[in-house]
Amino acid sequence: MSKHTTLSLDAMGGDSAPDMVVEGVALAFEKLPQVDFLLFGDERQLAPLLDKYKQLKPVCQIRHTEDVVSNDEKAGVALRSGRHSSMRLAINAVNDGEAAGIVSAGNTGALMAMAKFVLKTLPGISRPAIAKNFPTLNGECMILDLGANVICDADNLVQFAVMGEVFARTNFGVEKPSIGILNVGREELKGHESVQQAFNILQNIDLPIHFHGFVEGDDIAKGTVDVVVTDGFTGNIALKSAEGTAKMIGAFLKEALLSTTRSKLGAILAKPALDALKNRFDPRLHNGAMFLGLNGICVKSHGGTDGLGFANALEVAVELVSGDLIGVIKEEMTDLDYGMDKESVTQD
Amino acid sequence: MSKHTTLSLDAMGGDSAPDMVVEGVALAFEKLPQVDFLLFGDERQLAPLLDKYKQLKPVCQIRHTEDVVSNDEKAGVALRSGRHSSMRLAINAVNDGEAAGIVSAGNTGALMAMAKFVLKTLPGISRPAIAKNFPTLNGECMILDLGANVICDADNLVQFAVMGEVFARTNFGVEKPSIGILNVGREELKGHESVQQAFNILQNIDLPIHFHGFVEGDDIAKGTVDVVVTDGFTGNIALKSAEGTAKMIGAFLKEALLSTTRSKLGAILAKPALDALKNRFDPRLHNGAMFLGLNGICVKSHGGTDGLGFANALEVAVELVSGDLIGVIKEEMTDLDYGMDKESVTQD
Repeated sequence: MSKHTTLSLDAMGGDSAPDMVVEGVALAFEKLPQVDFLLFGDERQLAPLLDKYKQLKPVCQIRHTEDVVSNDEKAGVALRSGRHSSMRLAINAVNDGEAAGIVSAGNTGALMAMAKFVLKTLPGISRPAIAKNFPTLNGECMILDLGANVICDADNLVQFAVMGEVFARTNFGVEKPSIGILNVGREELKGHESVQQAFNILQNIDLPIHFHGFVEGDDIAKGTVDVVVTDGFTGNIALKSAEGTAKMIGAFLKEALLSTTRSKLGAILAKPALDALKNRFDPRLHNGAMFLGLNGICVKSHGGTDGLGFANALEVAVELVSGDLIGVIKEEMTDLDYGMDKESVTQD
Repeated sequence: MSKHTTLSLDAMGGDSAPDMVVEGVALAFEKLPQVDFLLFGDERQLAPLLDKYKQLKPVCQIRHTEDVVSNDEKAGVALRSGRHSSMRLAINAVNDGEAAGIVSAGNTGALMAMAKFVLKTLPGISRPAIAKNFPTLNGECMILDLGANVICDADNLVQFAVMGEVFARTNFGVEKPSIGILNVGREELKGHESVQQAFNILQNIDLPIHFHGFVEGDDIAKGTVDVVVTDGFTGNIALKSAEGTAKMIGAFLKEALLSTTRSKLGAILAKPALDALKNRFDPRLHNGAMFLGLNGICVKSHGGTDGLGFANALEVAVELVSGDLIGVIKEEMTDLDYGMDKESVTQD
């Protein structure tokens, strides 16, 4: 990255905000020397925190507001009454051209609603999706949607496929990323209408994409494809099932290693290797979900993360900016024409 | 179990059938002394296999047929043209009262279609579900549906809840099993119409069940509830995502332990503990999915399993028989009246 970038931050979003936000900026600072930060939030809290990190002075600017969107606020309410919230003002900064992207660890529903309202969806995209990387046996894949849309029709899934493909190409550096639609079987006739229609469209689409076909749940971790496309209901549950399983195995592994004197000794010897493995699955190092399909970069950090996790979300945002994700998606969507209902792709 | 039981087996179903079927019977024999087996399949293949296990002579009977349902046969075709197949004849044996339950490692779709056609669904159940146990942090839970119905309405989910509750009560020995509906959040307003309606019905239902509410994907492995209710699309993908993740972590763990001389030494010391952990997750010991909602016990073994896995599926079938699962479900469904559309609960 050579160009200068500004990120706007919802400094009050997240369970441990604003402390972890400032900590995150401090941790990311070394890796992101070309980035400035606009911190939206309570100056009385933010100024003393920033005082702890003198090196951040030249790259941080506080934009004071006292209003905050709470975690249990409904999206519609936040949209109507949160016009002066740290979240909303941080999003506005992207729309006004002051910042190239916004990062928030606040209320997901409110962030999506506000970002859609302020930044709008890209031409040809009816609904934005939440996307995230997932570790696989041979690297990583991207899954979308992870919860923005509980019901998706075939057009939504096709748009997710195109956006995911662009992401994988620009950010994983995969030349021709493969795309799979999540289903209950690999055969063409499996699943419900939406996945079958999306399958047909993607097989005949007029874009140079590599459509693999249907994939099953275990193909995610196998790394069968680079981009896994699904509706937000299934994607959310698949991701959380996988995360829950990983935690359970971690707990059982610990229990097993502490079960006998002999195994404890073995664990001490294997500790460096096991620690490396643990780091590989550290959710903080995979923190930062993208809202794909908006006319602006918006990254959602996990609400319960710490400074290290937030720093990772900042890096994700900078990667998306420097990869010109939005420009490439716009281009692809312009080329995309498979006779889908143009009425359905207006911004809602 | 004190009563005598007969199981009918589709001896030709499964990737390694009929060898693994006979092997499975031999392995289960010690644990199931009160069980007889009817083996449906090719006598020329089965007789020499049975000759290897003299002890099985008194408990096994071969019922010859040359017809087999292949793995790639469509359910409808199998139903029409497979009337003399080992799968169909084994199911018929349950309907004729010759056997108390049937076990097959063959084509899942064909097995479900044939079992529905021959055994019929129980009164009050519109669609049977595929159910399976899953290990959790504090024991095990049961998930249903795992793929029999890609789209489910609220009535289907409510029926799954009632059937799952009966299963957990009679087979886990949990006095008052808790039930959760899988969703993208725990709040009442989350998710789509089917889960919201099912939530309302279960909250006001006239049965002494313990309805926990909505659960998320990570609640499966946490063991938050005893019974996880979901549609077959989401359930299938959630289960396979979890299985894929478990396999990936196993592979990474192995890689980590073999990465240095020191970690290799540690692995040798920890081997007994790690082997015990591996056994805990051995899919063969969790083999045997139930078709719940049929007027007969039908257990589906994984097609790729071996004798040990098939033996486990046989044990599952015997447990279901001895717990009188079908009798109890029938009773509960008779008591169940929440004003649902009676038209929709006829057998289809």
